[in-house]
Amino acid sequence: MNKIYIATTSPRRIKLLKDFDFRFELLVPCKEHSEHEEPYLRVKKRAKSKIECLEKDGILAGFDTIVVLKDTILEKPLTHKDAKKMLMLLSEKWHNVITAIAIKHKGIIKTFTETTKVKFRKIHEEEIDFAFTKYNPLDKAGAYGIQDFSGIFVEKIHGDYYNVVGLPAVKFYSVLKKDYGCDLECIFKNKW
Amino acid sequence: MNKIYIATTSPRRIKLLKDFDFRFELLVPCKEHSEHEEPYLRVKKRAKSKIECLEKDGILAGFDTIVVLKDTILEKPLTHKDAKKMLMLLSEKWHNVITAIAIKHKGIIKTFTETTKVKFRKIHEEEIDFAFTKYNPLDKAGAYGIQDFSGIFVEKIHGDYYNVVGLPAVKFYSVLKKDYGCDLECIFKNKW
Repeated sequence: MNKIYIATTSPRRIKLLKDFDFRFELLVPCKEHSEHEEPYLRVKKRAKSKIECLEKDGILAGFDTIVVLKDTILEKPLTHKDAKKMLMLLSEKWHNVITAIAIKHKGIIKTFTETTKVKFRKIHEEEIDFAFTKYNPLDKAGAYGIQDFSGIFVEKIHGDYYNVVGLPAVKFYSVLKKDYGCDLECIFKNKW
Repeated sequence: MNKIYIATTSPRRIKLLKDFDFRFELLVPCKEHSEHEEPYLRVKKRAKSKIECLEKDGILAGFDTIVVLKDTILEKPLTHKDAKKMLMLLSEKWHNVITAIAIKHKGIIKTFTETTKVKFRKIHEEEIDFAFTKYNPLDKAGAYGIQDFSGIFVEKIHGDYYNVVGLPAVKFYSVLKKDYGCDLECIFKNKW
């Protein structure tokens, strides 16, 4: 049975991995880097860079999630003023949330991606000011978190919800099963 | 300022109302009834019936959520065998999750609905058996809960995620704001 190692420091990702009862050991990721500007290349390279320095006998996974409006990657805002600008940019528009999964097995790294489209409703400045009293936009790419109070800005999504939170759970499960021949007992903890 | 009363016993709905910091007082709903077979008529009548017997000076809301495959309403399964059959029916298909919100204000009841499309991936019998060790399908319409382990069956959704859990949070907020003139401080608790 293949043992699964996951290199991440994201508290939201770790919470989801635990909520879904994934069977894994947590590792500290390598320093992330990527010089690519094209969103898909950038997110794949970032996920890959997180596991490149690690060696384990089993399956080793790293993740990276980005928020993309048209072709622009929205990073974490530096100030509340930037965060407000970012949210006003997202208002009434569709954007993409892309997560890359990088998996290292027997020395070979493969990458997989999952994209979810997110549509913001029309938001007003006073709603943003109010929302900032309820969640912290500064630790979130795109200045919002669908699982937080800012979920109130999201009119609808098209795709996997958990991917927007940071873990494409179904994609990860399917890849482990189909591409790496893991069975249910290898992927999930037993709870009887 | 209008006071908001919500008549529900659903633990998932109450949790979401609290997570989003809605400002409300909880009431015990009236006995629900509906003779309609058409899904939208049925869910609206059910939501309405939950608040018909109640009188409050403010805004009174009731909810009902149904799972519809083609034109068939999927209720809570009675046995694990039924639950398995239901999930196999949903496999590889799109279905609708419809929530009706009924609001009584100054003696007049209005209803609003929110629909989210949900697509199941291809699921296998052994996955269902395994999943049943991780969540209880018997207290869930359609035998699954997107927020539970059975979220692993969901390939993608189109619409509002929270509506699938049982509370169309954005729709409810928008209706309170636009149709009933509530402001942010009336709808949400302050947290400074």
